[in-house]
Formats: sequence, structure tokens, C-alpha cells
Amino acid sequence: MSGIGRLFAPDLAELIAEKRWDELRETIGGFDASDAAEIVADLPRDAAVTLFRILPRETAGAVFAQLPASSQEELLTGLTGGDADYLIRALTPDDQARLLDELPAEVTRRILGAIPPAELQAARDLLGYPHGTAGRVMTPRYVALKPDWTAGQALDHVRRTARSAESVDLLYVLNNGRLTAELSLAALVVADPAARLDSLPTRPLVTVPATMSQGDVVQTFAKYDRPALPVVDGTGQLLGIITADDVLDVAQDQATESMQRLGGTEALDHPYLEVNFRDMLKKRGGWLSILFFGEMLTATAMGYFQGELEKAVVLAMFVPLIISSGGNSGSQSATLLVRSLALTEVRLRDWWRVLLIELRTGLTLGVWLGMLGFVRIVAWQKLGLFDYGEFFVEVGVTVWISLVGVVLFGSVTGSMLPFLLRKCGFDPATSSAPFVATLVDVSGLVIYFVVASLVLAGKSL
Amino acid sequence: MSGIGRLFAPDLAELIAEKRWDELRETIGGFDASDAAEIVADLPRDAAVTLFRILPRETAGAVFAQLPASSQEELLTGLTGGDADYLIRALTPDDQARLLDELPAEVTRRILGAIPPAELQAARDLLGYPHGTAGRVMTPRYVALKPDWTAGQALDHVRRTARSAESVDLLYVLNNGRLTAELSLAALVVADPAARLDSLPTRPLVTVPATMSQGDVVQTFAKYDRPALPVVDGTGQLLGIITADDVLDVAQDQATESMQRLGGTEALDHPYLEVNFRDMLKKRGGWLSILFFGEMLTATAMGYFQGELEKAVVLAMFVPLIISSGGNSGSQSATLLVRSLALTEVRLRDWWRVLLIELRTGLTLGVWLGMLGFVRIVAWQKLGLFDYGEFFVEVGVTVWISLVGVVLFGSVTGSMLPFLLRKCGFDPATSSAPFVATLVDVSGLVIYFVVASLVLAGKSL
Repeated sequence: MSGIGRLFAPDLAELIAEKRWDELRETIGGFDASDAAEIVADLPRDAAVTLFRILPRETAGAVFAQLPASSQEELLTGLTGGDADYLIRALTPDDQARLLDELPAEVTRRILGAIPPAELQAARDLLGYPHGTAGRVMTPRYVALKPDWTAGQALDHVRRTARSAESVDLLYVLNNGRLTAELSLAALVVADPAARLDSLPTRPLVTVPATMSQGDVVQTFAKYDRPALPVVDGTGQLLGIITADDVLDVAQDQATESMQRLGGTEALDHPYLEVNFRDMLKKRGGWLSILFFGEMLTATAMGYFQGELEKAVVLAMFVPLIISSGGNSGSQSATLLVRSLALTEVRLRDWWRVLLIELRTGLTLGVWLGMLGFVRIVAWQKLGLFDYGEFFVEVGVTVWISLVGVVLFGSVTGSMLPFLLRKCGFDPATSSAPFVATLVDVSGLVIYFVVASLVLAGKSL
Repeated sequence: MSGIGRLFAPDLAELIAEKRWDELRETIGGFDASDAAEIVADLPRDAAVTLFRILPRETAGAVFAQLPASSQEELLTGLTGGDADYLIRALTPDDQARLLDELPAEVTRRILGAIPPAELQAARDLLGYPHGTAGRVMTPRYVALKPDWTAGQALDHVRRTARSAESVDLLYVLNNGRLTAELSLAALVVADPAARLDSLPTRPLVTVPATMSQGDVVQTFAKYDRPALPVVDGTGQLLGIITADDVLDVAQDQATESMQRLGGTEALDHPYLEVNFRDMLKKRGGWLSILFFGEMLTATAMGYFQGELEKAVVLAMFVPLIISSGGNSGSQSATLLVRSLALTEVRLRDWWRVLLIELRTGLTLGVWLGMLGFVRIVAWQKLGLFDYGEFFVEVGVTVWISLVGVVLFGSVTGSMLPFLLRKCGFDPATSSAPFVATLVDVSGLVIYFVVASLVLAGKSL
């Protein structure tokens, strides 16, 4: 990217330490706010606080708006009321709402006290919508037009109001607050200035209800390929708009959360390097402990088969191989289905189609892996690499049959659990790969030892 | 969403079967192309082919452009040359390139033969950029302005050319092909019509080189929050633009691929329900087989400790618990780091900071889980639920110490592998959770049995 110079946080820190304020102001002013924010985010907190005090308010606001949430919180906690309020005011209402949501309550109270209520009203309104809905990410700063205006009048209105709007690429025609049409600025520019807005050609209106989940908002954007979508209430009143670049952030966050859940942790909510040690332990240790308790059942299960194990210790050797194959096939299908459900490529009603696919896939893969296992055992025996005893063929057959059962069970469990979770109103991604693996480990052991006692009955058992 | 009626594929299929062409044309014409495409995608292929033959070309083209890639391929394979070319021509050059990329070679040849070369030139040009780069997703349909034009002249130019551009929200000022500034249509509308373009205020220019990876393009968009970014070559010549809604699709695809790799499959490249059985087997079976071969080493490892196992079968009972805990902590850290690297929250140079975090986290979690394991064993013994023999305390200590080692090893391996893969030029997501788990399984067994032979030496061993 051009626009990023050779400036790094240490240089800035030096300018700050040496109190070269003019140079500082000039340096920061020459950057895109995003680039400046990136450098500022790397500064120690005290240096950043000093920097924000000496920057012109407009520059400070623009840079502040681009800082990562964690740096914004840190700065606001460090600044006193009077300095903080103009920074908050530099944010768009959706970003204000997000920030107020995440700040410690005591800082929020201080800020809310210092800023005129009228300025924060829009942010407070957004905070009224449930977490994770379209209402939370929309911005109320759109340009509204009246249906009986001419294109020329509308353009004049855009000229006057463009500065306070977040996006003027799409304009909204309202009739008593009800959204009746969407016009692009381009269409307005191209139109005959004397034409009435309600006579201009429009494409079918696509709207998003304020209560729609943000995941569905992302899917709606992916489907309709538009730069912005209007958000309406139940009666069709326009509440705000969501822009494609905000949705990109939402989509990235959702994918991150989903991956982290799939990987068997709680969503971190912050960049890895910024998570403090206690939170890291809590978010990973919680799930690890639950999985550990689940996995304790494997010890219980193996306890039941202690007799078989003592008679044929050779059986113990294939325990990791058997249960991990079940876990791997389970985490494959869980991952595939969690993502497909999130992208709405697969819907709840498709569960039986998925079941059929997984039965077929699991069976085939199980037969294949089982064959590999059988060949391995027989080959090692024949090549003299290991002695599995007199009944090595039976041991091989046990491993083969068990793998068919375990891989089949893993694929089916891994694929059906996300449906079950969604059906019960949970995030399907909670059916993390490790969770499925634990489930399959315990049942895999039971399958293995039951097959062994059938195949080896009257022989080594 | 409004705009979607109560029409489903079966109704359409009925209209087609009964040859009610006029009703069909009218029904399809009333929908947003995206909604129409969704219904058409559910039709059997023959019905879809018939439908496209009777639709007005413009409608057919618009609907075709919104179909999922797999349906587009299917349709083109079903239509003869003359019918296919106008559908291809309805696509933007970036979508043409994507489609030509994915079609079977013989269909591509037929289409390339039927369409005038000039029409496909833009798509061919895009195909000249390496797979997965910015060049492949940009569109050459932007509006270019000259620096010595006035705002009024520029607006007139936009009026004349708006129809053939993919986006006119941002306009590009070129000096002999070199990009010198970016103007929003809004800025042009607001400006004094007599002002020269090079006198208008602009914000710092952010550009993307054509060779930038699509992953980095997504991160650039996420950082700068703009509706479109210009793509340039090494000398600053403007090659095309990338719009935010196209980037959303790229971001979603990348997250999907990354998740699928993390879950231990190859990227499916198509929606789950549309993948044919052979591909499903190949993409899952390949990795499963590799993991299975890796996991075979567990049998080898346990073979080495056959003596210990025969003397103390009780050790076998905790094998699944030990190795799965290592696998779970490994897949946690692998998932966290893969995602952080993808989002560039963590960079290669941060590896040692991550190592320190994981050493600390792994150690703490290992001690905690080990304690749970110890308590479980002692409690079961004391409560008479299971008899772990005379040396149950030593068994408990063995489990505790092993868990510390295994969880620590899992966390460190899981977190460092993504760095190693990135350093060697591979996708870090290839360090799938199952892959790390397999690595840790084998080493976990070795840790466990070595600890056991030290702790139990001279007792049960």
C-alpha cells in the first residue's frame, strides 16, 4: 500500500519524549487516519494520551475512530472527561454504541455524564436493540428524500447534507418515514433534473429488519451485492442503514468467533496478543476442563474392559489409533456442517440429506481406513516387526470392523450435532471439533471392546 | 427481507412443464435478480435450460450473473454455443474470469470460440494474474477522469459512462494512466462546477498492488473502511478496482477454506450439498489417511512399552485421557494462532511473544487438569468405585505429571506449527486441529510411559 511511510511507533515516541509538538502534528496530519491509528496503537499508553492532547481535535477524532477497540478503551480510561468527550463525538453512532457497550461501567458513566445527552441519543437508541442484531450495527446517518421532490431538488439536498451522512452512495425515499424506494446517487446524477423522484426507475427494494441476526445480515449482503442495505422496523419505517464495509468487519468477527469455538475455546473477543493472562486461562481452561471431565469417561469405559485388557494387552495398543480416527472424521464433518449452516448453504430441513451423505461417506472411509489398519497389523507380523501373538488375524479383523463402526459413528455424530444445537437455539459452532472427538472417544472405546470380545471370544479372550 | 414472494422452484417447474411462457417471463421479471437466481438454482437442469431459452436476454443475463458458480457451469454445459455467449457477456469481467477458470476445459473452448475475442479480452487479461491475487478479483470497469477537467465536465462524463461502470461511487483521476487521486461522486456533486479536479481536496490515496494476495486485500479493506480500492501495477498505473461487496465474498470464501483446513479436510470449493460423492471422499479421505498413517505411530510407541503395560494394565486406562487432553490444548492454540495470523493480528516476528504466552498458559492448564486427574483417581479408589491397585497414589502422580507435560507440549506445538508453515510458504491453516492432535498423541504416549517408568520404578514396574 502506498500512503504508509517509514514511520514507526519508536520515532513517534521520540518526538513525544522530546516534546517536538509541531513536528508531531505535521507528521500525523500527513497520514491516512487508518495508518496513523496503526502506529498510535503500538505506542505506550502514556505517550498515546499525550499525543491525543496535543493533536488538533479534528485529527485526533479521525485517528481515534480508526483505533482498535482495545486501544480506544485504554485511551478513554486514561483521559479525563473533558478530553474524552470530543473523541467519542468523532465516532459514528454505531461505533459509539459498540464502544459504550465494551467500556468498564465506571468509564461509561463518566463519559455519559460529560457529553450532552442529545449528542449521544443516537448511540443510546442503537443500544436498545439486542446484542448481535442488525439494529446494533446500523448507522442512523443516511440521506432521506421525499417522493415528490424533483431530481434537481434532491441533488441540492444531498449537497447540503452530505457532510453529516455516513454514506451518500445510496439515498432513501421516505413517505412519512416509510421507506418506499432506494436511489443511487449515480441515478440521481444521470436523471433529468426536472423528473419527480417517484417517476424514476428503481430496482426491487431489499430491506433488513432491525432484529435480524448479524449472521443473516452478512448472508443478505453476500447475496445481493449492494454497497448498503436499509434497516426497517416491522411497519417498514426506515431506522438506519448498514454499509458493506461495516458488514465486512462483522463477517470477519463472526468467522473468528466461529473458528475459535470450533477449535474448542470460548471466543476471545480481542486480538490474541491483547488478551490478558487471566482471560486466556478462563476462555481456554473452561472448555478444556469440561472436555477433560468428558474424557474421564474413557477411563471408566476402559475399566469395564479391564478383564479383556489383562488377557490381551495387545488390544491396548490400538486404542489411540481407533479413537483418534473417530475423532478426526467427527471433526471433519462437524467443521463442514457448522460452516455450511452459517453460510445458509445447508438449512435445518436438509438434515436427512446430510445424514444420508454422512452415512455413505463414513461407511466408505471407515472400510478404507480399516483396511489400512488390517494390512498394517498383518504386514508387521509377517515382516517380523512386532509380534501380535497367535491370533493376529483376529486382532486385525477387530481393528478393521471397529474402524468402520467408529468412523461411521464419528461422521454421523459430527454432522448431526450442529443441527441439534441450532434446533435448540445454540450456536452450532459450539459442537467444537474437540467436543465431538470426546464424544466419539468414549463410544469408540465401547465399540472397539465389544467387537474385540465378539471376534476374539474363545480365542485370546 | 421483503422482495421475496411465496414462489418456489416447484411452482416454476409447473409453469415450465405446462409451457406457460408469458406467465413465466412476467413472474421472473418481478423479482430481484438475486431472488430469481435462488429459485432457479433449485430447478432441475433441464427446466433451468428451458427457462433461460425463453427469458428476454437482459433478464436471463441478470439472473445468470447471480447464480452460484456450480449452477452457472451446469447451465453453460447444457446450452449450445449461441445461447451461452450472451449469458457470459452479461457477467462482469471478474466474474467471467472466475467462471472460465472453473469450467471444464472443453466447455471453455466452446465458449471462447463462440464469443468475439474483443468481448472477452478483459476477462483474459484478468486471467493473466496469478490465482488468489488482487488482479483476479478486480474489475476494469471504473470511471476515469482527467486532472484538468472541471467538476462540471467530470459530472457530464459520469452521466455518459455510468451505465458501463461497475461502481461510480468512487472516481479515479488519471494522469497518463497513472492514478493521481480518488474522488467520491458525492465530492463531485458538492463541488463548485467550475473547479478543476486537481484543485479539489482529496484524502490520502490507498492503493493495492495487483499481485497482493486476496487475504491481504481483505485486511486492507477491513482497515481502511472504503467502498472500493484501486488496483495498480508497479509503476502506479491504474489496472482496475475492487469493490467492498466483492471483497465480502472473498473474505467469506477464505474463512470457509481456512475453517475446512483447520477441521482436517481439504477445502471443498463448493457448497456441501453440491459436492459429489467422489470429491467428498477424496477431500476427506486424503487427510484422514495421512492422519491415520501418523496415528499408526501410536501403536508403534505403545509396542515399545508392552512390558510396562503387561505389568501394569492400569496404565492403559488413562491413555485416552492423557492424549486427548494434549490434542485438545493443541487444537485450541493452533486455531487461535491460525486465525490471528490470517487477520495479521499476529505477525511472523511475534513468534517468541506467542511462545512465552503458550508456555505460561500450557503450564498452568496442565497443572490444573493434572490435579483434576489426580483427584479423580484418588477419589475413585477411596470411594471404592474402582481398584487401581496398591500404588494408586503413584498412578495418580504419573497422570498428573504427564498431563503437565502433554498439555504444555500440545499448546506449544499447536501454536508454533502455524508459524513454521507460514515461514515455509504454506497456508498455516494446514496445521489442522487433527494434525496437531496426531502429533501430540504420539509424543504424549512417550511422555506418559517415560513418566510412568520413572514414578513406578521398583513398584508395579
